[in-house]
Amino acid sequence: MEKILNGIWKYRYGIPEQHTPLLYREKAISHEQLQQLHCGGTAPFSDEQVIAKETARGITVELPLKSEEHIYGFGLQLHRVDHTGRKKVLRVNSDPVADTGDSHAPVPFYVSTAGYGVYVDTSRYATFYCGTNLRKGDSEHKRLDNKEVGTSEIELYGYQVSEGDRTVVIDIPAARGIDIYFFEGPDLTAAVQRYNLFSGGGCLPPLWGLGMWYRAYSAAKKEDVTRLAHTFRNDQIPVDVFGFEPGWQSRAYSCSFVWDDNRFPDHEAMLGELYDLNYRVNLWEHLFVHPSSPIYEGLKEVSGNYEVWEGLVPDLAVPEAKEVFSGHHLKEFAAKGISGFKLDECDSSDFVHSSWSFPDITEFPSGMDGEQMHNQLGTLYQSAILAPYEELGVRTLSQVRSSGALASPFPFVLYSDLYDHKVFIRGVVNCGFSGLLWSPEVRQAESAEDLIRRIQTTVFSPMALLNCWRIPNPPWMQVDREKNINGEFLDNCEQLRDTCRSLFEIRMSLIPYLYTAYARYHYEGRPPFRALVMDYPNDPNVYEIDDAYMMGDYMLVAPMVEGETERSVYLPDGIWHCFWTNETYAGGQHYSVSPGLERIPVFMKDGTLLPLAQPLQHVADDAVFEISFRSFGDNANACTLYEDDGKTYDFREGSYNWVQVTALSEDSYDITRTGNYTGQRYKFNW
Amino acid sequence: MEKILNGIWKYRYGIPEQHTPLLYREKAISHEQLQQLHCGGTAPFSDEQVIAKETARGITVELPLKSEEHIYGFGLQLHRVDHTGRKKVLRVNSDPVADTGDSHAPVPFYVSTAGYGVYVDTSRYATFYCGTNLRKGDSEHKRLDNKEVGTSEIELYGYQVSEGDRTVVIDIPAARGIDIYFFEGPDLTAAVQRYNLFSGGGCLPPLWGLGMWYRAYSAAKKEDVTRLAHTFRNDQIPVDVFGFEPGWQSRAYSCSFVWDDNRFPDHEAMLGELYDLNYRVNLWEHLFVHPSSPIYEGLKEVSGNYEVWEGLVPDLAVPEAKEVFSGHHLKEFAAKGISGFKLDECDSSDFVHSSWSFPDITEFPSGMDGEQMHNQLGTLYQSAILAPYEELGVRTLSQVRSSGALASPFPFVLYSDLYDHKVFIRGVVNCGFSGLLWSPEVRQAESAEDLIRRIQTTVFSPMALLNCWRIPNPPWMQVDREKNINGEFLDNCEQLRDTCRSLFEIRMSLIPYLYTAYARYHYEGRPPFRALVMDYPNDPNVYEIDDAYMMGDYMLVAPMVEGETERSVYLPDGIWHCFWTNETYAGGQHYSVSPGLERIPVFMKDGTLLPLAQPLQHVADDAVFEISFRSFGDNANACTLYEDDGKTYDFREGSYNWVQVTALSEDSYDITRTGNYTGQRYKFNW
Repeated sequence: MEKILNGIWKYRYGIPEQHTPLLYREKAISHEQLQQLHCGGTAPFSDEQVIAKETARGITVELPLKSEEHIYGFGLQLHRVDHTGRKKVLRVNSDPVADTGDSHAPVPFYVSTAGYGVYVDTSRYATFYCGTNLRKGDSEHKRLDNKEVGTSEIELYGYQVSEGDRTVVIDIPAARGIDIYFFEGPDLTAAVQRYNLFSGGGCLPPLWGLGMWYRAYSAAKKEDVTRLAHTFRNDQIPVDVFGFEPGWQSRAYSCSFVWDDNRFPDHEAMLGELYDLNYRVNLWEHLFVHPSSPIYEGLKEVSGNYEVWEGLVPDLAVPEAKEVFSGHHLKEFAAKGISGFKLDECDSSDFVHSSWSFPDITEFPSGMDGEQMHNQLGTLYQSAILAPYEELGVRTLSQVRSSGALASPFPFVLYSDLYDHKVFIRGVVNCGFSGLLWSPEVRQAESAEDLIRRIQTTVFSPMALLNCWRIPNPPWMQVDREKNINGEFLDNCEQLRDTCRSLFEIRMSLIPYLYTAYARYHYEGRPPFRALVMDYPNDPNVYEIDDAYMMGDYMLVAPMVEGETERSVYLPDGIWHCFWTNETYAGGQHYSVSPGLERIPVFMKDGTLLPLAQPLQHVADDAVFEISFRSFGDNANACTLYEDDGKTYDFREGSYNWVQVTALSEDSYDITRTGNYTGQRYKFNW
Repeated sequence: MEKILNGIWKYRYGIPEQHTPLLYREKAISHEQLQQLHCGGTAPFSDEQVIAKETARGITVELPLKSEEHIYGFGLQLHRVDHTGRKKVLRVNSDPVADTGDSHAPVPFYVSTAGYGVYVDTSRYATFYCGTNLRKGDSEHKRLDNKEVGTSEIELYGYQVSEGDRTVVIDIPAARGIDIYFFEGPDLTAAVQRYNLFSGGGCLPPLWGLGMWYRAYSAAKKEDVTRLAHTFRNDQIPVDVFGFEPGWQSRAYSCSFVWDDNRFPDHEAMLGELYDLNYRVNLWEHLFVHPSSPIYEGLKEVSGNYEVWEGLVPDLAVPEAKEVFSGHHLKEFAAKGISGFKLDECDSSDFVHSSWSFPDITEFPSGMDGEQMHNQLGTLYQSAILAPYEELGVRTLSQVRSSGALASPFPFVLYSDLYDHKVFIRGVVNCGFSGLLWSPEVRQAESAEDLIRRIQTTVFSPMALLNCWRIPNPPWMQVDREKNINGEFLDNCEQLRDTCRSLFEIRMSLIPYLYTAYARYHYEGRPPFRALVMDYPNDPNVYEIDDAYMMGDYMLVAPMVEGETERSVYLPDGIWHCFWTNETYAGGQHYSVSPGLERIPVFMKDGTLLPLAQPLQHVADDAVFEISFRSFGDNANACTLYEDDGKTYDFREGSYNWVQVTALSEDSYDITRTGNYTGQRYKFNW
């Protein structure tokens, strides 16, 4: 057990594999920030407590787990928050139908309520048995227990949780050695922060990335796109990012990475029109390269030995492959103003009707095999797409369907083809444990109620996205897909549009607050969206909460889903206030709330001075936010905002400010800017 | 490629693992029978066509797959019949929610319509990619294909099947070598027969095993059992086997293997009463051993190093463990007249709310690890339970929830906790490819219609079982569980009971026909229940049929499910007759049939002389079947029946007959018995 950094310990067993996430870490460790985190200086475990073995199957590691501990993490787990007593196989998969560990973004990192984190540096489909089994003989004392024989499913299967001090058993196939990193607390959040700073810090999105996103109909043609773009502006629907789905390419499944001249003749003129309307443009793609693509020949020698959908699988771990791939994206897209991409199908799928992707035994020129590449593909792909933006010196915020370990520096937000609203809310709760961002996107809706509830969740999430790839008209015009396609609109579509607009405007108001939360993610490793257990690790009432989360440091969000007129919300210790009514709630208890359809339950910490911007229609490069404040509680007299140019990487050279706002009296405030950014993104009103 | 037997070839690469299914093969190869199968004498592939490699992950093998080939097998696959173009991970699991390869009984054996079989001798979670991916560059000629970009899910994902000559890629983790066995045809069925004979031949159940099975309420007490047992006899409901669920034991989850004196005081008297009523008694159990069990101490040293449900996991690959376990079953149960067991929970589960079983890294004294043990557990367990019956010289037919490779000699029938009726029918279709038997048991029903449809399927299946563990009264009294428990019966329960009785009687009539089909399974390796493609491998219309199957050689069964008033049935080439009406159908086409609720669509091959027994209430040891015949078609003038004592293993010493029946005129038949069995189980009426 070797201390390698402040609060970070390394344990090595055997000879680790060459191709692990750490080899491909995107950014340097945030040393300076790590130094600022308080730390006890003692490793979570002693060498003797870590039991490692090599077997024919690979490496096994066993770590202590006390009876009172609860375990979180493992990436974007959509089926459960508290993994104690469960088995998780960390395998990338796009349709995780059950709580198996399969995930769009499996991450071999977990944190404990006991205040430490464990990162296992592997791209293998590692299995974590989180206290599932006692050791032989541990139950001998139960010999005389008079437990009744179960005669129903619940009795039989409820009898299956092991109790008492147990272990976490980690099963790493194929490896002959392993590096494990232990992250000190003192608490769960500090362990996560250390992990994120070890990964290179959280990403800092461009300001426009925190606005509204809209992805258009996949079969849309040029005229459909421009009509829609003008409609949003005419109807004053805030939209920052306009997304194109597969139809923009000349070939898709696999991809040509070339505009389709039939649907989009003179696409540059169309882009110019969108840019003039202050839209950012995002293009869908995946990384399997169709034979007709101009990059096919350049990639053929540096691809895996099997095809997917008739296309190459470029080995982006090989610098030449990354160069060809990134170079094309730089020249043809990023340099022409495209703001980012949606990186689809980089996960692989086993649970759908038609499974797909390359075999686990695929050979890649880098020396990686298919298994390693599967769990690594999402981050390698993000790295290749990020490169052009780094080169141009402009930020992106993009989408990706797969990610993995050490991914916090990537300005990419995960999404899924699953669509259960509760599952999507759970994604927001879980993503913060593992250096990930997640979008509970709205695709379509069963009803107007469903649409509103889903938009509410996405507005209070890492990325506020409507992905309307299956409908040509906005969902508020018609929720029924077939009617939407036929242009048959709801009678109350204008009213529904107004409701949606006002929700979008709330998102636009929250951008400064959110941007500051993202800045803390970048600089301190503190996730902008978090499970309640991260902020209240000593309160067992929050251990299993999977339907409410913190957004930034002051806001507790408890979304509702279609069919609910009320829901139960647990407010942790302290005083809370309703975001909408300012009504006061004493923490440490459950409340049943029924805010009506137009409101999502949101609670503010007592003492919060919340900055709210006058909603913009879009965040232009030179946008200035006009800020006013709302106080929650009597002592709500100070807040901090982060400020920089919102689009370049100049912040890396120190060009940013922390703006300290302090209320002096009812109508006077002190504003103190600390930092080297010379512009001002905020104008304050009181 | 070494020819080891008539039509069987062995290919070895590297140094195979010690613990493979072949090490634990239950019975000797049926050499004599193998010799009688016609065979071309050429291996399906040349050495050059088999590409094997060792990697860090294990062994990879690649085999040719022609564009026109279709692939079947892989054990009890419940989600698909034709595996061409699909990936299958052969991992034992009790709740395979999707078409991933997970199965109660994964078997690394597949057969091709090209007329050969491939058995990979491994207990690992091997993955078979059945023509999923082309090799890099294979699609380059599609560069100019003018395929439209997909703009809907179906277009996008329908574009995912690779075409042309491909390969089967086999990924065997952890191994450093592998033995592969190739089975010649000439056709698919012959390859399956060879595989079954290589396994030791199919099992031959006792005659009573082909009657009706009824498992009683888990919470039943002695008085409930005897009341139910008398009711069946009084109501003339044929029942052969009476099954006890967990409640019979003093501890369950894990198991004590001891009768519960509270529910069943003087259980021997109760058993005596059941035996007097001519019931066979079957006991539920699983193999995890509770600390209170009398066999706990004897097994502790020969168990795995983790517990499941507070119980030991005995290593039944170790002779001492098998001896303790089998010895207890011999002395306490088999020798006291118990006819067999229901071996539950030997699969393991990952897809349910509360996953369970021992870790894959568990260490067993035999040297097996948890992964190997998982895929081997079902057959080791069957072997341990079969041993007492072999010792006593009496046959059993039992139930098991997990099985695996080379399992055809085991007189055990698989079942599942899944319960979709169509899935259950697919199980019957698929089990015959892999030397397995499967029971589409009836547990409860949504409605009277559902109950009747499900009973029809189970009556025309390998095991006719009602598993009423959740309801105290027979389902025909009340299908609603809660009302059943409360004793609120349906108004038309007597009518429903009569319908059920008449279906049970059909089963009892079919026993001689079925027993003969099982005899062919035993002696020739020919599965008694088969997919249509096994009998018609050259008819592409049957390749994907997953809702109809052959029962024996002459009967095509096409079950219906609740909500259907008609269904489509494809009848292969030839002339067919309705089982019920004798109506004639020309084969080679689809028919829509609507036989009404009381009939299941069943079709007989033209020329069949079908033996039907006068239905018995139960098959006593000395039972004689009174046989009459029904002719289907003009040339239906001969049939063969198998005959032996129906209960001992004397058939192994040649004590059996083939009874040849030939119609001489409308009312005279010739009966010729060939063989050494001196009794007569059949009495013929015309």
